[in-house]
Amino acid sequence: MKKAVILVSGGLDSSTVLALAKEQGYACYALSFDYGQRHRCELEAARKVATMLGAVEHKLITLNLDSIGGSALTDAAIPVPQSDSADSDNGGIPVTYVPARNTVFLSLALGWAEVLGARHIFIGVNAVDYSGYPDCRPEYIKAYERMANLATKAAVEGRKLHIETPLIDLSKAQIIREGARLGVDYGLTVSCYSPDDAGCACGRCDACRLRRAGFAAAGVADPTRYQQKNRE
Amino acid sequence: MKKAVILVSGGLDSSTVLALAKEQGYACYALSFDYGQRHRCELEAARKVATMLGAVEHKLITLNLDSIGGSALTDAAIPVPQSDSADSDNGGIPVTYVPARNTVFLSLALGWAEVLGARHIFIGVNAVDYSGYPDCRPEYIKAYERMANLATKAAVEGRKLHIETPLIDLSKAQIIREGARLGVDYGLTVSCYSPDDAGCACGRCDACRLRRAGFAAAGVADPTRYQQKNRE
Repeated sequence: MKKAVILVSGGLDSSTVLALAKEQGYACYALSFDYGQRHRCELEAARKVATMLGAVEHKLITLNLDSIGGSALTDAAIPVPQSDSADSDNGGIPVTYVPARNTVFLSLALGWAEVLGARHIFIGVNAVDYSGYPDCRPEYIKAYERMANLATKAAVEGRKLHIETPLIDLSKAQIIREGARLGVDYGLTVSCYSPDDAGCACGRCDACRLRRAGFAAAGVADPTRYQQKNRE
Repeated sequence: MKKAVILVSGGLDSSTVLALAKEQGYACYALSFDYGQRHRCELEAARKVATMLGAVEHKLITLNLDSIGGSALTDAAIPVPQSDSADSDNGGIPVTYVPARNTVFLSLALGWAEVLGARHIFIGVNAVDYSGYPDCRPEYIKAYERMANLATKAAVEGRKLHIETPLIDLSKAQIIREGARLGVDYGLTVSCYSPDDAGCACGRCDACRLRRAGFAAAGVADPTRYQQKNRE
């Protein structure tokens, strides 16, 4: 059985990716990061999702990205915006962008893949509803894969590594339809940038807005638990 | 004053790189990793070297690469070889290779560089005495730089990032001569794969052999503290 490392955040997209990798016949090794993010309940969501979708193993790597700062998601001094990111005067890239996050995550996935002998790394990046993050674009992923194939012992020995991005051209609604088809319980997942301690979503941040609109467009019932005050 | 992030391990090469970056007029931000390596005294060496060479800041990022394993440097189940790596039946790549290490380290440097507004990352890779590590080759570094310039907000906004590898074509003797010229105190640095708790070198592992031969070839007195039993 061929092995794959799947980056699993506990959110909607990466949970769908895990289900898709499983459907494609991979033995799935789920990888999550405790990187000082404010929304810690996503780690609990990642654990539940990995179990639900039958990952062979779920590894959690701790690294203190908060010591680098620079993002509303890891720096307590930067507030998470409650409005559309397009309003941001940040050059079109929202303050929730975490510097080099996907590069860091893919690099640790690369290390684990090499140890496992896995030749496929799955990541739930998306170039449609991508919120303006540079490290979600197809040209970035292609350059990463090229670099990775020069970086490792496996590559030097001719075992090519593939970065798999099954969501890259899908809308949020299409992603949700795929997940629904595969039986993903989105009620377990957390997408919100400012959830409460129980994992209930704010319903207002960029991530919540994209997610809510996705369920509506997909015609799938939204199982998200919203905070009482923000229910619509 | 232009800023640079310098990867500083506490070893001979990266200490020389820090001295070279300083000479070139950079405000130097030194970055080290506590990644579960066996030779923890190198972190103490990194701190001393960063102070000695006037780094503006020395940041230590903790990440548990030992949970990934796969290397004699992080996995207690794999012994560090005491003979020449060429004897290894490991496809020419020694067991001291840490999967994707430089990729992981450069990625965290990239994140910090973006937050600092630094456009230069210095790394002490070397393609001459490189022990067969794939992620020390020029083609790897070039591919990394290309990927990095698609990964970040800074790059999207046109501020190109440079990966600086001033040692890449130098022999160990040439590196040591550069450091001696710049007043680097190599007595503070630790290169050994199996130092004792006091930071004294074994004198026998690959890293010690390369280092000792380098001092001899450079005609520079070797200030390394060797373990009593292994002095020659």
